[in-house]
Amino acid sequence: MEAKITILGAGSALPTYQNSPSGQLLELTDKSFLIDCGEGVQLTMRQMGIKTGRLYTIFISHLHGDHCFGLLGLIATLGMMNRTQPLHIYAQPDLEKNLRPLLDYHCAGMSYEVIFHAINPRKKEIIYEDRTVLVETIPLKHGVPTCGFLFYERHRRQDSETKEFYYEIRPRYAYVSDTQYKPGIAEQLQGVDLLYHEATYIEADATKGKEHMHSTAKQAAAIATAADAGQLMIGHYSSRVDDHSIYLREAQEVFANTFLAEERESYLF
Amino acid sequence: MEAKITILGAGSALPTYQNSPSGQLLELTDKSFLIDCGEGVQLTMRQMGIKTGRLYTIFISHLHGDHCFGLLGLIATLGMMNRTQPLHIYAQPDLEKNLRPLLDYHCAGMSYEVIFHAINPRKKEIIYEDRTVLVETIPLKHGVPTCGFLFYERHRRQDSETKEFYYEIRPRYAYVSDTQYKPGIAEQLQGVDLLYHEATYIEADATKGKEHMHSTAKQAAAIATAADAGQLMIGHYSSRVDDHSIYLREAQEVFANTFLAEERESYLF
Repeated sequence: MEAKITILGAGSALPTYQNSPSGQLLELTDKSFLIDCGEGVQLTMRQMGIKTGRLYTIFISHLHGDHCFGLLGLIATLGMMNRTQPLHIYAQPDLEKNLRPLLDYHCAGMSYEVIFHAINPRKKEIIYEDRTVLVETIPLKHGVPTCGFLFYERHRRQDSETKEFYYEIRPRYAYVSDTQYKPGIAEQLQGVDLLYHEATYIEADATKGKEHMHSTAKQAAAIATAADAGQLMIGHYSSRVDDHSIYLREAQEVFANTFLAEERESYLF
Repeated sequence: MEAKITILGAGSALPTYQNSPSGQLLELTDKSFLIDCGEGVQLTMRQMGIKTGRLYTIFISHLHGDHCFGLLGLIATLGMMNRTQPLHIYAQPDLEKNLRPLLDYHCAGMSYEVIFHAINPRKKEIIYEDRTVLVETIPLKHGVPTCGFLFYERHRRQDSETKEFYYEIRPRYAYVSDTQYKPGIAEQLQGVDLLYHEATYIEADATKGKEHMHSTAKQAAAIATAADAGQLMIGHYSSRVDDHSIYLREAQEVFANTFLAEERESYLF
């Protein structure tokens, strides 16, 4: 089964002429999952003609503005489109606390329901499970409580010879959001098909990276190596780095099968 | 003195592949004024390389999301740029009530202050005055309390013959935000150099326009005619109309000197 990831925003906190805040749309079997929702994510989706009929679930990694300021606009837009399916948002409880008064003010009487599910970013656990897709939190280390998400499909198969049933676990996609270099996560990500890992800084700014609790491209590549990932995608580019090929070069020195997250591009895996 | 208006968003509530929510940047003498701030306005400003050093003041016409959901992101971005000048926001008091808890949560300890000034959209009055620029509210008729803004420069001049002092009042820019056709406003706008008037609907949808308390292109042109405006700019395009030349044609039948607001374009007047 082929999965698809679409990059809606690949920048970091400060938007630039080439990058907007974070957002990715993951398509697995018959569903879409939105991961983070910075300002402009819904505008990019509309510009790209992305349909939202199969979008039931959103995951928010942490509550820095560049990862969640686009939610209110998206929710309002879905309401104007007369959506009836509920929308489930998995995030830390502060998000609901912050958003609920605004939803009451701006989105009262909407045609569909927004349901918040509180997650604990400090704990590695399965937070979502449907017939074929599971999602696990990946505890990270950032200025505010933050987690990544490990998505995987689980299909029940039967061995043609032994007739025994088993589960095929693939594809797997890991979204490693804002974090300091945290080698411990590699164990949870063993053999992941596609690893997205933030890479805000280039080597020349590695000290600054640590101060701001972000990773370098090389560190992202070190995680991909340790996790024996199939491919590595990097993003969350600093506003100070115009030429993203520097990130790519530095990462590829460590992990060859790396590519750059490009906004408005989709990747199959 | 030449003034400049830059269109940051010319769409209506539902974003499209070609339009984002409302936002305009007006440059008068030595200052910039932001008028409405829908989602994505700050992203467009960053993409266009617009400097914010001379932006001290924002005016919000009403509290529908497509006119104010971009404020939080803009405020946060200005903080990351280490702004020190205060930012003044003129809007209905509900805006501060809604935004303050989010500013406390996301923007605590910022390098500059955000100062809200409560306006009453039902009353025509001068709400802003500095050495050369004045701003008057224009009460409108929409689903929620709404006003437009009339901006003008006032320069003290001396008549070369009589030596008497007088005020030159120009240029004048009127921003007529979301409204049903309201012919009564023409009096306040007499002789305005450039009139922006919303024109969400084309004639074929005029009935729908009235229901949703918006104007048609023809009605915008009727206001421009009655106000004896220098030029008319129309925008706030419906997501249902792909071909904006229909708006232009219908407006120009009534008021020839009309042009379409195009995003990322600037117009001198």
